[in-house]
Amino acid sequence: MSLLITGSIALDSVKTPVEEHQDLLGGSASYASLAASFFTPVNLVGIVGSDFPQQYLELYRSRGINLDGLEVAAGKTFRWAGEYEWDLNKRRTISVALNVFETFHPTLPAHYTNAGYVFLANISPQLQLHVLSQVKAPRFIVADTMDLWIEIAREPLLELLRRIDCLVLNESEAREFTKETSLIKAGRKILGWGPKYVVIKKGEHGSLLFAEDLFFSAPAYPLEDIHDPTGAGDCFAGALTGYLASVDKITPESLRKAVVHGSVVASYCVEAFSLKRLEQITPSEIAARYQIFKKMSHFEVG
Amino acid sequence: MSLLITGSIALDSVKTPVEEHQDLLGGSASYASLAASFFTPVNLVGIVGSDFPQQYLELYRSRGINLDGLEVAAGKTFRWAGEYEWDLNKRRTISVALNVFETFHPTLPAHYTNAGYVFLANISPQLQLHVLSQVKAPRFIVADTMDLWIEIAREPLLELLRRIDCLVLNESEAREFTKETSLIKAGRKILGWGPKYVVIKKGEHGSLLFAEDLFFSAPAYPLEDIHDPTGAGDCFAGALTGYLASVDKITPESLRKAVVHGSVVASYCVEAFSLKRLEQITPSEIAARYQIFKKMSHFEVG
Repeated sequence: MSLLITGSIALDSVKTPVEEHQDLLGGSASYASLAASFFTPVNLVGIVGSDFPQQYLELYRSRGINLDGLEVAAGKTFRWAGEYEWDLNKRRTISVALNVFETFHPTLPAHYTNAGYVFLANISPQLQLHVLSQVKAPRFIVADTMDLWIEIAREPLLELLRRIDCLVLNESEAREFTKETSLIKAGRKILGWGPKYVVIKKGEHGSLLFAEDLFFSAPAYPLEDIHDPTGAGDCFAGALTGYLASVDKITPESLRKAVVHGSVVASYCVEAFSLKRLEQITPSEIAARYQIFKKMSHFEVG
Repeated sequence: MSLLITGSIALDSVKTPVEEHQDLLGGSASYASLAASFFTPVNLVGIVGSDFPQQYLELYRSRGINLDGLEVAAGKTFRWAGEYEWDLNKRRTISVALNVFETFHPTLPAHYTNAGYVFLANISPQLQLHVLSQVKAPRFIVADTMDLWIEIAREPLLELLRRIDCLVLNESEAREFTKETSLIKAGRKILGWGPKYVVIKKGEHGSLLFAEDLFFSAPAYPLEDIHDPTGAGDCFAGALTGYLASVDKITPESLRKAVVHGSVVASYCVEAFSLKRLEQITPSEIAARYQIFKKMSHFEVG
């Protein structure tokens, strides 16, 4: 089952205490699309400028990502520059230039409007709603968000929640959104705002999946060295949705597996800058790490 | 297999934003002993003053805890008073009065010295070593510690690590002890200091078990309302050791189960002040919540 993904596409400059790289492929839709592409065909909706490197278009294509919904506009691609502190837990945005992204108001190619699965990666909830409104009969819709939209676009975000099946957000966003310090209360409160499922990403502590009659706690992969945390959450949600689209079945069991697949792909993402690690991995590596997740969280009954 | 537990016994005054209670039964050995008593007979080593309430001695006895190693000294019982902030994540010590605890230098009753399993609950590493030196041939030794000993008794603590099988400590203590921000690095570094096993307690995020060839990530029980977090870590480690003593078998599988049993008992502990919840629960309630842990962390392979 094909998957429509929209979000940002960016050229990133990322600095860690150890390394610094310019003009990396970035943006929520880039991370999510590559992550999802291991599981299902992806139709990408986004915008880039005329400066967007050909090699990145080729990377998308090499992963079977359909680019009919990718607008190449006159002007510069959205750019983001950020810096991580020594422990990589804190990130500081150095600069943001929206560039062509300011004009992003996509009309979906006709064949995209039949999408069964939709992942609305992190962009404004107004844009997420605009894209979603063009999809005729989606079976399952996942959305991500960020602190900025919780702060400046709360009403559109709450409207979005009433139209999607699953919200994915991180720990601090869940607390900020709900004003609850308990993540359990936060997750359940968001369920009350509309979506049938909520996934809270906790970084090194794994993730939590909430539904009315389901609670699942997934571990994080025990990485000693993280090279670049950028995009891990986008990869998580992209792989999660990609897995669900591939099995085309929403059950407690498929959702649990989807969360673990999201964790697996995110754990690879942070092993190198940008999408460099995801360019290399194979389905068998994903399967192998999935088995490690199984082993590290398994215990016998009784 | 019987279990020797030593640590502090205290009368606590605990204040949360919602409730306040005086003269509660507290101390690391009290929590650990009651938690362990669900799994195995406990021999308690500790000291109390002549003011120690008879009802608390009866509570120990009602749980089958042997008190031959409990010294009742002239003077007052160790007292601790603390206050939790509104979200219960931060604790402030209001007052500490060591009282009779200052003279604590126990000689074990003869029948205690044959202990197979030992849990050295949180007291100074010097005292932990003093008790341990009197046990003839322990099969498995677990110790807990706290930030204070990491700061003021690092050398005795490192000596202790060379004599025990398993160290249990919390997230912030592991980071402080090792100067590593990554818990994965921290856990592995402590393994290098002596113990075959390290367990890092992460509160709402569950716990991690490290060994040379074993990594296990256990979830936390999704509690919405915590009434009093005091003693949760002591209960965790007490139940963990109690479970191991009951099965008298150290394997990757028994250790995983022990960690989950620790999590189960700790999750009950925080549902009421002091040991009030643990006084009420039954083995079948422990078994039922163990099944919930299994369910909430289970996912299928492949």
